[in-house]
Formats: sequence, structure tokens, C-alpha cells
Amino acid sequence: MKTYLSSCALVLMAGTALPSFAAETSKPLVIESQGSFFVGGETKTSTALSASTTGPGAGDGGDVTINQMYVQFQTPVNGNQHRPVVMVHGCCLSSKTWETTPDGRMGWNEYFVRKGRPVYLADQSARARSGFDATKITAVKMGKVPPSELPNVFMASHQTSWTLFRFGPTYNTAFPDEQFPVQAADELYKQMIPDLNGFLPTPNPTWTNMAALAVQLKGAVLIGHSESGFFPEEAAMINPAGVQGIVSIEMGCTTTLKPEQLSTLSKIPILIMFGDHLGDVPGRLGSLWPTNFDTCNKFVQQVTDAGGDAQMMYLPKMGIKGNSHMLMQDKNNLQLADLILGWIDDHVEGKKGGHHK
Amino acid sequence: MKTYLSSCALVLMAGTALPSFAAETSKPLVIESQGSFFVGGETKTSTALSASTTGPGAGDGGDVTINQMYVQFQTPVNGNQHRPVVMVHGCCLSSKTWETTPDGRMGWNEYFVRKGRPVYLADQSARARSGFDATKITAVKMGKVPPSELPNVFMASHQTSWTLFRFGPTYNTAFPDEQFPVQAADELYKQMIPDLNGFLPTPNPTWTNMAALAVQLKGAVLIGHSESGFFPEEAAMINPAGVQGIVSIEMGCTTTLKPEQLSTLSKIPILIMFGDHLGDVPGRLGSLWPTNFDTCNKFVQQVTDAGGDAQMMYLPKMGIKGNSHMLMQDKNNLQLADLILGWIDDHVEGKKGGHHK
Repeated sequence: MKTYLSSCALVLMAGTALPSFAAETSKPLVIESQGSFFVGGETKTSTALSASTTGPGAGDGGDVTINQMYVQFQTPVNGNQHRPVVMVHGCCLSSKTWETTPDGRMGWNEYFVRKGRPVYLADQSARARSGFDATKITAVKMGKVPPSELPNVFMASHQTSWTLFRFGPTYNTAFPDEQFPVQAADELYKQMIPDLNGFLPTPNPTWTNMAALAVQLKGAVLIGHSESGFFPEEAAMINPAGVQGIVSIEMGCTTTLKPEQLSTLSKIPILIMFGDHLGDVPGRLGSLWPTNFDTCNKFVQQVTDAGGDAQMMYLPKMGIKGNSHMLMQDKNNLQLADLILGWIDDHVEGKKGGHHK
Repeated sequence: MKTYLSSCALVLMAGTALPSFAAETSKPLVIESQGSFFVGGETKTSTALSASTTGPGAGDGGDVTINQMYVQFQTPVNGNQHRPVVMVHGCCLSSKTWETTPDGRMGWNEYFVRKGRPVYLADQSARARSGFDATKITAVKMGKVPPSELPNVFMASHQTSWTLFRFGPTYNTAFPDEQFPVQAADELYKQMIPDLNGFLPTPNPTWTNMAALAVQLKGAVLIGHSESGFFPEEAAMINPAGVQGIVSIEMGCTTTLKPEQLSTLSKIPILIMFGDHLGDVPGRLGSLWPTNFDTCNKFVQQVTDAGGDAQMMYLPKMGIKGNSHMLMQDKNNLQLADLILGWIDDHVEGKKGGHHK
């Protein structure tokens, strides 16, 4: 068994952020309130809750709760001066995405709180602390349904992740200007957990739950990444009432929306962000990022044409080079956070004459 | 779909704890440092990572990380005045167990921090943000192995939980003096997620990871509950170097330990806590809690006979009535936390002449 004692040492060191951010990230953090709760969830009755014939669960049948979404939050003192921010992770990951980086620096979750924002981290429905509907697995084990009815579970290999996340052209070789802390890639791999979204009904309950959370918060900025990158838009199309801003990071965009859907989205400020080396990955994944980028540029144009406020931040074009797919964990993650915070100030909170709802 | 908007409103209300604790739980919380990291984990190579034939995961094979344990921590200012505390949840639950209670009061995680303790919440290996080894599920779906090789997954029904957790004698009927906030039972059910411990090797990696975490922290008090109630003892028997105190809550105890194992445990202060109504549940689960309680009284005696410091806190005997299995979520949860904090002060930190390592 490999052990990684060094990672804990890193985690426990205060102020390991980039020098320019050291002063503001090493002070004690003052929290007005924190906690966790669930959004959504529905009751399912099943006789396939346990295949065990011993113990408290032997032959259990009855009601379970499924499709709920776990949310963890921290509100800074005077957090009501800013819009709450909801962060939702991508494929094969949990809310750990936004926390301490693989090499032990501050994550966006705490940085946004330190910048005065109430921050809500959601584990997607069917992932991590949100649980999932396991009755299909148990039904297969019990012989009630054939194995072919098992939904797909996806575990991403280290090898696929390395190139898919654009750490470098081939496994364990980094791009010369790579911003991801590749020496800590093993710590990222520990964050990567089975993706059970194949177990979910349509529409994805995470979308509905994100929309409901935004309403509960009386308005929020929704941030999605990768698999969940377009989830803020999906949530807004289900119910835009609470969605005051959208930040979509590194994903594919839908370019076949109906006029009424584009009309809905045109009333919400939208920021899309992409990193570097989109076309630099060889092999079967080579076309993925150029295609995703193209669809999102097209989507930005469609929202703009519908009278909306949509913006593409393509980092290399802004002179910010070497960023991976895991922007929130890259070595310049707090610099990128500042770009998003500035965009929220300008476009959502209207400090510089942008949209203000 | 049911929605529970009221739960969020409760969560967002500051100071909803019992009146006697309101002053100390409603002030802003000052955090010296916080974050998350993993303990343990090993690499597995598999060709059954995804049964999908499309998308980035199509035909994925390679290395994945399994058996790691996700840990989330908060350290108060001057947290080095006290021993760190590690909390590990029980069956069909995650670290959510220790956070905001189902009815929106402060959980033990924050309360312990407010009492000056660095607090570490661990999701058991194969649960929640720790992920699990899903290759067996995919191998069955691909037809590589028969369904009978699927490990057992356990979902606990609402009905089983109600009596197993001793909310009352029959589903949706509470004991007259019940301390669990039964009106918020739906919120507990949302915390209950599939238990995949059947997927784990032997010995349980969570035990090894808890022992390793205690060493990393240069000493810690380990707290387990229910399924994990005896995990602190198991961790100490693997490596006692970092285990400075053990709090075991509401579980079965092993009474067949070898003399050398009892010798190891006799050097660590041990507290065991049980709630009320142990014998008041009818039906097939009726003998579970009396039996568990008996094994733990026997274990306490065995450790005492070996020269150790083991104590049974049986709450009804102390005049504290009506507590459920979910002590950390009961209406008097902070009163019970104070009992544990006082025990740590006395027996682990040696403030009143107890053991001091």
C-alpha cells in the first residue's frame, strides 16, 4: 500500500499559497455560520435493499430516500453583502474538488468565503454524501433482473485523467508550462470516485436541486465544472427564479436550445472559462476539447444574439498560459478565482454598471 | 417529489441550539485552519472501469486508486492546547452524521471546534467522498463474472432505521421521552446512503487509515459510532502509536481479544457510551441492543482487569433519559458532547489526575 504522509504535512502548513496571496490566506477565518443540509429527495419503496441474510439488514425492504443533494456551506461575517455562490463538481469527483488542492494549497471554497461570499458546495445527486439508488445492484445480485440492466458506473483511470485533464501529452509527461501541480497527481487520483450518474432518472435531479437551492437562497450564482459545467444553465431552464449568475467551466455546451430557452438564459449573466492546451492532446481524446470550446463559443454567440450577457474567458488569449482542466486546483487557482470574483462583482452585482437584477 | 424547504430555513437560523447553549453556539466561529486530505489508498489496475462504449470513458482500463479515506478538518485558534479528535460515522451514513442535526441544530463537529479541539471528520473507506472500488459491478455488467460475485450493498429502510435507531417501538411512533428530533426524521433518511463495506478487503482499510491518521496528527482521540463504534479499538490494535484516547458509541464489542490485544488497549483510556430504551424495541431487532450492551460491559471489565482505564457511560443510569442510537443528533446532543469533552479532559489530557501520555 502506498502512503502519502507528505500530503498531510502540506495540508497542515498554514500559508502555503502563492506568495502574492499569502497574507490574505493565512489569517484566521471568521465564520458567521456553517453547516450542511439536503435539497430535494424522494421516497422509493423497494424489496431489494439488502441481499444479506444476516444482521440488521437481513431481508430489509421498505422505503429509502433517493435523488437528494447534499450541500455544505460557510457564510462569512457580513456575507449578506454578496450573492451566495454554489459550486458543483464534475465527473468522477465530489465537492473535494473545490477544497484544499492536491498539493495542499487553499481551495476556491475557502478563498471565496475569505472574499466575503457565502459558499455552498453540493455533492451531485448519486455521488458521495448524496448517496445513490443501489436497489438495481441488489436486484441483480438477487437474480431478480439480468446484469445487462445494471446502469453504467464509470471510474476514470489515472492514465485517461492525465490526458483528459490536459496535464500533458502522454501519461506522466507534463506540458512545459503546465499549471496543474503534477507532482501531487496521486492526491487528485484519490479524489476520483465512481460516477453513478447512469443510475439517475431524466432530467438529472441535480439540475432540479440546483434550481431549488438557488430559490431557497433567495438568489445565487451557480458554478459548474466539466460534467456539471452546463448544469447551471440546465437548472436555470428548469426554474430561473433564483439563478442570478452562471459560471460554466470547461465543458461542452448545448447549441440546439429553443428560442424560449435562450430567452431565459439571456436574462442571466453567464461566464464561461477555458484553460490552455485545448488542442494539444493526441489520440482518441484529441478532438474533445477543441469541439467543446467550439460549442461554447457558439453558445455565447447565441445568448448574445438573444440580447444576453454571455462572456468567454479563454485564458491563453488573456495571457494566462498552461492551465489544465482542473482550473480550481492549478497553481494559479486564486488568480483565476479573482477573475471570477471580479466578473461576479461587475456582471451580477452590478458594481461597474453591468446587469443587476 | 417531496421538498423540504423548511430544513434549509432551520439550517440558516443562527442559535437554534437548546437555550442553555445558545450563547456559546451563536458567536462567529474563528478558524485557524481548515481543509481536507486523504489517508491511505492503493493503486489497482483493471480493465473493468467502464462498460460504456461512448464518451471519454469508453473502454477505459488502467489504474485507479481504492481504499483511500477522505478527511475534512477544522482547527480553532490555539487548537494545539487540546488533542485532535477524529470522528468516524456508522453504517449507511457519512460524516454528515456529525454536522448540522436533522432539525438544524449545531452538530458535534462544530461544537468540539468551539470547545478548542481540532476536529477531523473521516468518510469511511468505500463510502461517500472516499469513493469505492466499482470494478466488480462493471465486471458483472460486462459479463466477465456472475452476479453472485457482487458484494452486498446495504440500504437501510426508513422502517428498519426507526426501530433500529430506537426512535420508538414501531415505525412513526416515538417513545414518550424520545430525545431524537423525530419530526425531522425525513432529514435523517436523506443522510442514509448505500453501505459498500462489503466491497472492502480484510482488514478493513478504514481501521488502518484511522491508525495512520492518528500517527500523522502526532496523537489523537478516535471516536466511532455504531458500525464504526469498535473501529478505534481495531485501529489501536493495528498500531497504537497515535491513539491517545478512544470513544466508542453504541456498538457491539469484541470479547474474544487475545491477552496481548487487551494489553495494548489497556494503555489507552476508553470511554463507551450507550443511550436509552436498549430493551424496548420489539420484533426481530429486539435482542440487538441488550446483546451489544452486554458485550461492551464485558469488554470494559476485560480491559479493567488488564489494568486499563475503561469506562461505560450508560446514560439512563446517569439520569439522562430517552436517548436514541443517534446520540450526536439527539435534542440533548451538546449536553452529551460535554460529557465526552469532560472525559477527554480528565482521562486523556490528565487535567484531573487521569492517564496522560
